Amino acid sequence: MKQTTVKYLKEYVGETVQLQGWLYNKRSSGKIHFLQFRDGTGTVQAVAAKADVDEALFEQLRSLTQESSIRITGEVREDDRSPGGVELTLGTCELVQQAVDYPIAKQAHGPDFLLNHRHLWLRSQKQWATIRVRHEVVRAIRDFFDERDFVLLDAPIFTPAACEGTSTLFEVNYFDDKAYLTQSGQLYQEAGAMAHGKVYCFGPTFRAERSKTRKHLTEFWMVEPEMAYYDLDMVIDLAEAFVCFIVERVLANRRQELGILERDPAALEKITGPFARITYDEAIELLQKAGSEIQWGGDFGAPDETMLGDHFGKPVFVHHWPTEVKAFYMKQDPDNPKVVKAVDLIAPDGYGEIIGGSQREDDLDVLEGKIEEHNLPKEAFEWYLDLRRYGSVPHGGFGLGLERMVAWMCGTEHIRETIPFPRMLYRIYP
Amino acid sequence: MKQTTVKYLKEYVGETVQLQGWLYNKRSSGKIHFLQFRDGTGTVQAVAAKADVDEALFEQLRSLTQESSIRITGEVREDDRSPGGVELTLGTCELVQQAVDYPIAKQAHGPDFLLNHRHLWLRSQKQWATIRVRHEVVRAIRDFFDERDFVLLDAPIFTPAACEGTSTLFEVNYFDDKAYLTQSGQLYQEAGAMAHGKVYCFGPTFRAERSKTRKHLTEFWMVEPEMAYYDLDMVIDLAEAFVCFIVERVLANRRQELGILERDPAALEKITGPFARITYDEAIELLQKAGSEIQWGGDFGAPDETMLGDHFGKPVFVHHWPTEVKAFYMKQDPDNPKVVKAVDLIAPDGYGEIIGGSQREDDLDVLEGKIEEHNLPKEAFEWYLDLRRYGSVPHGGFGLGLERMVAWMCGTEHIRETIPFPRMLYRIYP
Repeated sequence: MKQTTVKYLKEYVGETVQLQGWLYNKRSSGKIHFLQFRDGTGTVQAVAAKADVDEALFEQLRSLTQESSIRITGEVREDDRSPGGVELTLGTCELVQQAVDYPIAKQAHGPDFLLNHRHLWLRSQKQWATIRVRHEVVRAIRDFFDERDFVLLDAPIFTPAACEGTSTLFEVNYFDDKAYLTQSGQLYQEAGAMAHGKVYCFGPTFRAERSKTRKHLTEFWMVEPEMAYYDLDMVIDLAEAFVCFIVERVLANRRQELGILERDPAALEKITGPFARITYDEAIELLQKAGSEIQWGGDFGAPDETMLGDHFGKPVFVHHWPTEVKAFYMKQDPDNPKVVKAVDLIAPDGYGEIIGGSQREDDLDVLEGKIEEHNLPKEAFEWYLDLRRYGSVPHGGFGLGLERMVAWMCGTEHIRETIPFPRMLYRIYP
Repeated sequence: MKQTTVKYLKEYVGETVQLQGWLYNKRSSGKIHFLQFRDGTGTVQAVAAKADVDEALFEQLRSLTQESSIRITGEVREDDRSPGGVELTLGTCELVQQAVDYPIAKQAHGPDFLLNHRHLWLRSQKQWATIRVRHEVVRAIRDFFDERDFVLLDAPIFTPAACEGTSTLFEVNYFDDKAYLTQSGQLYQEAGAMAHGKVYCFGPTFRAERSKTRKHLTEFWMVEPEMAYYDLDMVIDLAEAFVCFIVERVLANRRQELGILERDPAALEKITGPFARITYDEAIELLQKAGSEIQWGGDFGAPDETMLGDHFGKPVFVHHWPTEVKAFYMKQDPDNPKVVKAVDLIAPDGYGEIIGGSQREDDLDVLEGKIEEHNLPKEAFEWYLDLRRYGSVPHGGFGLGLERMVAWMCGTEHIRETIPFPRMLYRIYP
């Protein structure tokens, strides 16, 4: 007998196969059991009618509990009404382990309960689908860069100094010294771009923010491409192609998961380039007209981002930001030193900033001045200054937060569901 | 004029193109300059003969320094003697930035000097090639699992408890609490396997070991697949196919880099399955015969691993290890409780253990006993025990250390060159 997984059942219509997995759910009457069987690749309904199976099996199925592990055999039948297009006529069922009182029941649980049971909650349909979309997004991200001659250059996690202020850094006892967990691999990517032309890193990053919002995690994944001989416009072009590529891949390969998540694909199908590109000045004007109290020089709040997203109905690039709200390494606009060549990409539907990028300051003197202005310890940045001493070139890049991207794709309200084991203020278990 | 990169020059033979990059090296006579030009995708020789170019350009090239950034144009000519098969007849050269006294010169530098200049050292040919092999290995790893229906399930970095003892853990101040940096994502992958059938994580892991050897980093990347309904033999089969797949990809796509690294491809071409599979008992016998003082019950030292690697000339699986030297979660052999269903894969040529894996203990009672025996805090493992309470199945997996694999592929003596910014005892800069 052929052993297979739910994913490939359609290839075995008319045949009897063996599957290994778990009982996801069960509906029973006195005469028939409908088992929802899952094996990680998908779910399928297995039907056992009292008239068709032997009595011992029928009785065994009656006592079979949710999430018990089972090996089953059955004949594969086409069934247009089922999501996978097939059903199973159950032949045998071998119990591997009986699960007693599985904690996650049908009724609604609060978020704390579910997060405390994250190791089991992952088995629920929507969580299962979310992780699969996350996988697709990760794959799309890597494919996008790999196909375009980027080289993967993993950034270090332990860093000696802060990239953007120290208040939100996690401190580690590093033998007889202190180290900090990285907030961004960007500075290291700049070194990489000078060696490889185009590079990216894609790993976990950390922010010790004492904020409990639906958009914050203390530990999240970020992809950061960096390109030599790129100006701001080229950075924006790349970011636009990148976001469109990810959306296309999710639509092409994860329709089933979007269905489980009740995410309307139409909301993603409209995400095609070109995206609007407006200056920060234009954004301020739009926001003030729409009733925001934001003043020139201020950073956007979540309501401002939502407003901009709603206005365009698609992602929108906001570029040329006030120098004061952006990091020291961003390229000063030679025509207007009050602004830097920075860009944010704001997603629609309230998902906010998903990309932040810039052209980088490639002039040694200007950069040294900025490090002084920001009161940063110059010794710690000597290596970074070397990149301007030895073969400096115009360059730029951006960062995209994986979990925000996944939340947007899935239509997930809270970012905590987009990562297998979320880490938040007061949560490191399980 | 067409702008391109060194990688694609062969497509432009007979045409004039523009390139952007850096001067890698220069040889000059009074009558001719040979520029080694690099742009991250490769290097090409650009030739300027005094007789062919105007005098100002010839003079400019005379003063051009190593690692200065330049834009050049030139005609592409076929040249069978050059590694890339083409050369450039230089037309113009625009200086972007002149590099003064680039620190890494031709003469040999000590490792400390090079590591202090890692941000520049990355540009050197061998380092450039190593990072590209690393990229290929990472890509192969992800492709292998993605093509086999594994789901990526990123493990958390912050963990509340130790997986294998606490002495080598990095401690983090986590708000008002303590957290530890992960040493392995495995326990979390077991939860994932029960949700997705087959999963893997691939991220940085941390060991606070006070050892300075050529095989140790405090921060390194590890890939850890975990499979439901797998026994030890299936784990070994998968690990064997996996290693062969990576080697094949490196040989298929990175011949040029192996050449730069002076790594003989023949050493990798012989790495084909099947690999020998011996029990720990058999390994001990072999080692003792070969003169090792190892006794039954001891873990292998580096010389033991080298001996085994030399004996087989190929990777060798050693399975069924003494319970005492292995972790608490490994499956006790029902026929012999003194050993567990664990496996190590030892690479040849002194590269040592590159894979460690096992079937996991899936029996709740046995596992609870092990947690007690090891004096582990049971509360911290309640979620892990849940995996045995609710739908326990035979399962297993393994971990492969990325940097050791890359070192083996590249023939690199010290693992520190296989990661862009190595972190070691007393080194977190740059």
